[in-house]
Amino acid sequence: MDRYLVISSDCHAGPPPEVFRDYLDPQYRPAYDEVLEEQKKRERVYINQKRFGVKSNKAYVDNFMENERVKEGGRSGAWDPAVRARELDRDGVAAEVIFPVPQEPGGNPPFGGGFMIDSPLAGAHPVELQYAGARAYNRWLAEMCAVNPERHAGGILVPMDDIEESVTEIKRARESGLFGGLVLPPLGWATTNQEAMFHHPRYEPIWATCEELDIPILTHPLNPGIDYGDLPGRRWLYSSEVFTPAHRAFWFLLWAGVLERYPKLRLMITEAGGVWVVGLLERFDHYYENRDRETLHEMFSKKPSEYWADQVFIGASPPAGRLEVELRDKIGVNNLVWGSDYPHFEGTWPYVHQRMRAMFGGVPENEIRLMLGENAARVCNFDLDKLRPIAERIGPKVSELSDVRPLTTDEYASLWADKQALEAMGTPSPG
Amino acid sequence: MDRYLVISSDCHAGPPPEVFRDYLDPQYRPAYDEVLEEQKKRERVYINQKRFGVKSNKAYVDNFMENERVKEGGRSGAWDPAVRARELDRDGVAAEVIFPVPQEPGGNPPFGGGFMIDSPLAGAHPVELQYAGARAYNRWLAEMCAVNPERHAGGILVPMDDIEESVTEIKRARESGLFGGLVLPPLGWATTNQEAMFHHPRYEPIWATCEELDIPILTHPLNPGIDYGDLPGRRWLYSSEVFTPAHRAFWFLLWAGVLERYPKLRLMITEAGGVWVVGLLERFDHYYENRDRETLHEMFSKKPSEYWADQVFIGASPPAGRLEVELRDKIGVNNLVWGSDYPHFEGTWPYVHQRMRAMFGGVPENEIRLMLGENAARVCNFDLDKLRPIAERIGPKVSELSDVRPLTTDEYASLWADKQALEAMGTPSPG
Repeated sequence: MDRYLVISSDCHAGPPPEVFRDYLDPQYRPAYDEVLEEQKKRERVYINQKRFGVKSNKAYVDNFMENERVKEGGRSGAWDPAVRARELDRDGVAAEVIFPVPQEPGGNPPFGGGFMIDSPLAGAHPVELQYAGARAYNRWLAEMCAVNPERHAGGILVPMDDIEESVTEIKRARESGLFGGLVLPPLGWATTNQEAMFHHPRYEPIWATCEELDIPILTHPLNPGIDYGDLPGRRWLYSSEVFTPAHRAFWFLLWAGVLERYPKLRLMITEAGGVWVVGLLERFDHYYENRDRETLHEMFSKKPSEYWADQVFIGASPPAGRLEVELRDKIGVNNLVWGSDYPHFEGTWPYVHQRMRAMFGGVPENEIRLMLGENAARVCNFDLDKLRPIAERIGPKVSELSDVRPLTTDEYASLWADKQALEAMGTPSPG
Repeated sequence: MDRYLVISSDCHAGPPPEVFRDYLDPQYRPAYDEVLEEQKKRERVYINQKRFGVKSNKAYVDNFMENERVKEGGRSGAWDPAVRARELDRDGVAAEVIFPVPQEPGGNPPFGGGFMIDSPLAGAHPVELQYAGARAYNRWLAEMCAVNPERHAGGILVPMDDIEESVTEIKRARESGLFGGLVLPPLGWATTNQEAMFHHPRYEPIWATCEELDIPILTHPLNPGIDYGDLPGRRWLYSSEVFTPAHRAFWFLLWAGVLERYPKLRLMITEAGGVWVVGLLERFDHYYENRDRETLHEMFSKKPSEYWADQVFIGASPPAGRLEVELRDKIGVNNLVWGSDYPHFEGTWPYVHQRMRAMFGGVPENEIRLMLGENAARVCNFDLDKLRPIAERIGPKVSELSDVRPLTTDEYASLWADKQALEAMGTPSPG
């Protein structure tokens, strides 16, 4: 095949909030009507303004809002499967893993759905309502995915309060067609309750269920769970620390022995960078081989970097990505999974093709094939036989990516908001 | 000079607890006697056993305890300046930056001294006692450093409660000869009080004082501030997260504009790895150049990676270090400062010379000179004219480090506990 089969590890879907109402069990609709009433009072703007009173870069916003594909309503692919398929086609993306929408376009899962609980965007709702919201989200998502089932790997949302109820919903949602994996809530730093931490034995049925169903565990940043107050710099302190709760799942699942006890279980940490793990793996191996050798050799059959290599994946969504690709030998060329973040504002869409070229320029074809699609297929069990014909029609041409020289860090950074530079990178070849 | 001038960014000093008593203002001695009484009841063992019920690797411990230099009492250099000078000489280390001792040998600063407050090792004492303890530590340290003043850059300990009192003690301690810098308490994750976070404006006099005195700010890991409960894996969850509070000072000082307002201020983050910053710098620059360009260009005169390059340093103590050296172009060859962690168990001593060779093998001489000594000299204003004669006498020979091939990650890891491998690396040339 002279094209790449591309799978994005990190896309988002959710309808306007009103739509979710019909997917809620009827007894929860009055409570949801109150939430919708509250939401109407708030202006729905990008997180910068809503939370931090900071204006987004005008050139960056203009670039985005004036793009033809945005004007043509491309963002409504957040809920419209026909638009979604059109936009994925234009991007050359054959398939995707889908997360909830913690920002526009699209609505938050009703009552946070367990995912949003830590976030001031959603507020803390009673657990019963969170479960109802998660079920509504999963039902809606299963319907949207069913239009092109081989292309959309929907992530299953579920709170982690009543583990038995969570297991039931995971199984039901998987049965309904969601095969992306379990979206594990990010572990906020202010959490002091050990039952909320992933080394607690109460989670055991969750891990067992995911292995049994052969679905991965997914994490995605949402909120560091820290109140920085109304002080200067808080917007970027938030940004500086927002990735870390998504990282924590790795060492909790590692040291609690979950990866050891469930050797088929896979974890994918999305949109949270990847360089962070390089130093950790060296250090963790040192604990295993040296500092705590006797105890750790009793507890674990292999060293931490081996669990990483076998079971943990990085969903590398730009603007992260260039460095991850450069350091792929240390992170694992088998462990890096490209992501587009469609249809989010800060992601690569609608310049997916150009940013992909900037990220993979100079890398050998076989390694690009791994990072652009084959690794993702292994994480989520995508059906490659069904995706290949799609990739043959829409995938980026091998010649378009392999002949590009790698960009420097500065060039890559400037590419982000520079429309001219983006256009000079060229557009995807017609299908 | 055919030898390297070596400065360690990370050493520790503190006398047996009883000795501290004489350095406390008399009115605080009765309260300290009670603390000593309590401490006697607890066995003073390595953190693994004391806190986590985990045995340390026997080979690792035996290697250490059976070493000639340990048997000769080399660890008592924690408080004995003559032994300390002897051990530094044997290691080829001309000078050092000194932190308190949060583990044996040596005692914790009385009442935690502000540094230990977050740690169960010390317990939370009333603020007045913490200030008294910090003064006692600073007095004792100044006396020890005065024996070889050009070699010992003592870090100043002070709680951060009453900022005016803190400023007074910083100035007094600097005047008494401590020039290593201000040891900023690690910012634990469970801290919800914004007054304890470093973007709070109440810290302004601290930053101003450090710039005025031309001393750096130092951070060092101590405790992540999280209770993992009595659950399996807790010992390594602690280890996985213990570095991060020391990292946080960077982005708090950056985004709060401290590095901008105090352009001569320097921050050195010690014994907490260095690879972690590589992805952050790319992302932070993206916020500056793109996502939040207009706001950030108003707030800051240069991009985050430039503040890093000019003002922030990594104290890279092994077992971290090999990767940091390999990625020095990304972290900054001018920003990496080697550290030995003498006399701590998990540090490089008493195999400093061998581990140094493993870390720097294959690196050009001029870059080794920066990382082994010249960068540290710039951070703490060491007097190179006074140190050069010492280095000429004891420093490792250039030929001994530059002719070594770089070790692989696995070789480096196995070197740690493998006495035979260590001995095969050779011993320092006689002075």
